[in-house]
Amino acid sequence: MRLTILGNGAGGPFHGRHYTAQVLQVENHYFLIDCGEGTQQQLFRNKVPYDRFQQIFISHLHGDHVFGLIGLLTSYCLKKRTKKLLLFSPPGLEELVTHTARLCGIVFPYPLEFVAVDSSISQQVFENKHVEVWTVPLNHRTPCSGWLFREKTRPRNIRKDKIEEFDIPFTLIPGIKAGADLSLPDGRIIPNNALTIPQPLPRSFAFCSDTAPSDVVVEAIKGVDVLYHEATFTEAHLAEALLSGHSTAQQAAEIARKAGVKKLLFGHFSGRYLDAEQHLVEARGIFEESCVAEEDTTYEVGV
Amino acid sequence: MRLTILGNGAGGPFHGRHYTAQVLQVENHYFLIDCGEGTQQQLFRNKVPYDRFQQIFISHLHGDHVFGLIGLLTSYCLKKRTKKLLLFSPPGLEELVTHTARLCGIVFPYPLEFVAVDSSISQQVFENKHVEVWTVPLNHRTPCSGWLFREKTRPRNIRKDKIEEFDIPFTLIPGIKAGADLSLPDGRIIPNNALTIPQPLPRSFAFCSDTAPSDVVVEAIKGVDVLYHEATFTEAHLAEALLSGHSTAQQAAEIARKAGVKKLLFGHFSGRYLDAEQHLVEARGIFEESCVAEEDTTYEVGV
Repeated sequence: MRLTILGNGAGGPFHGRHYTAQVLQVENHYFLIDCGEGTQQQLFRNKVPYDRFQQIFISHLHGDHVFGLIGLLTSYCLKKRTKKLLLFSPPGLEELVTHTARLCGIVFPYPLEFVAVDSSISQQVFENKHVEVWTVPLNHRTPCSGWLFREKTRPRNIRKDKIEEFDIPFTLIPGIKAGADLSLPDGRIIPNNALTIPQPLPRSFAFCSDTAPSDVVVEAIKGVDVLYHEATFTEAHLAEALLSGHSTAQQAAEIARKAGVKKLLFGHFSGRYLDAEQHLVEARGIFEESCVAEEDTTYEVGV
Repeated sequence: MRLTILGNGAGGPFHGRHYTAQVLQVENHYFLIDCGEGTQQQLFRNKVPYDRFQQIFISHLHGDHVFGLIGLLTSYCLKKRTKKLLLFSPPGLEELVTHTARLCGIVFPYPLEFVAVDSSISQQVFENKHVEVWTVPLNHRTPCSGWLFREKTRPRNIRKDKIEEFDIPFTLIPGIKAGADLSLPDGRIIPNNALTIPQPLPRSFAFCSDTAPSDVVVEAIKGVDVLYHEATFTEAHLAEALLSGHSTAQQAAEIARKAGVKKLLFGHFSGRYLDAEQHLVEARGIFEESCVAEEDTTYEVGV
């Protein structure tokens, strides 16, 4: 599970920062999370195989999180995409995309399926072989959903030397991977843990932007390996954070600490800050494993 | 009059190219022409004082020419703009902007005035003290307007040494600048050309993207100092140019030659080309004063 940060800026493309967009890779699946203006450029720069997105998750309909989407969907037309694309977001995205497409003469040659999620509750909205995706109820000025990606528990790996040693037939292997013991013709029982090795623990990543600090978030993301939480402001601008439904870096760190996450990445920096040095000082004062979500950087999740 | 190229790519942000956008500076006025996704980033990079735009000209509603507009208009909100902004385009832009704004919770704190132009005729749609702007009827798959910027003839400059020599009263100066002779108390008549020096000839720039080659365009842009004309393809892909309502570099150069322009800049390169070397060879074979419209480059018009 690997997370690539494409943009960590809020509001505008200030100081060379880009609008919010992230790519989560789980095995050979790539998920796009938010899609601010210019995301396509950033996908190119970071050599993301963006043709392989089959699901895109949009937290909310503010421009700095969604204005790059229509350009990406249009580029898929030029590339003659045929594979279905699922778009998860709070309500409104379907109307935004279809209305723009109509006015701009875009006809999608691939199926586009909109899933309007309820951003007020935590519920599973997607799963594939490897991962479940859950909504995280955020507290912003408009319906806004975070996303929790939780790897499924994978079957245990069977030891090749044991297959040879006990001449285990092919038909028994799925059962042993799922936890069964082995009964030999001579009556002996070989316990499962002598035949298999466990897979690493399932990994998890939570994306929480944009939001004021919220205990509901803490409950929804308990113990994740990596939490991305917005930290638009430093403590010097706490009043503005309150007014605008955003968080300070210190508040983001408090959420991380309360939720017992392993690592915090924070971003969505207001244009008033040239860099995030002060954010980092304030976050680390609360939660040591806090890091700036650096653009054009890929983070391993759960290693 | 100075033209800055922000993007010369078509379709997608391939090979580091950007979507179409240009800035024309006439004296201390700045006009934005087209606004593809990522235009804001390019405005920052080129240090354009984009707060000073009071008129934006959008050629047509295809995404690679307009998807950066809503982001720019939203950024003006964050900057608490109050100055009116005029948006010129074929019909549909008002619906696109107002619908997106409604769905994304954008309330413009500045007056936004939409001018839907008739892209089938050549007519003046704007003027200020220095310049007139005319539509140029283009031939594309959707209503599409080029833009002709024509400087007004400026009044002649009065010579300071002559003001002193003849003790010319302040009240007579506007008349002399406008061409009047000077009658002295002793009955002598001093002819105007002995009192004034002419201003340089008015300069002109025409923007023509996207379009198939068209004699209507030739008529509308006759003799301009600089013509920007799209050249999406090389001759090798002439059939695709025909099908898609675009031009080859050779066709753009033929338009420039027929219209008797002084200089041709061409761009809007398809993603299939790594560079525009072949375009340049083909264009120069027809019209020597052909140049690639290079991104992040400012061209003097009419010098």
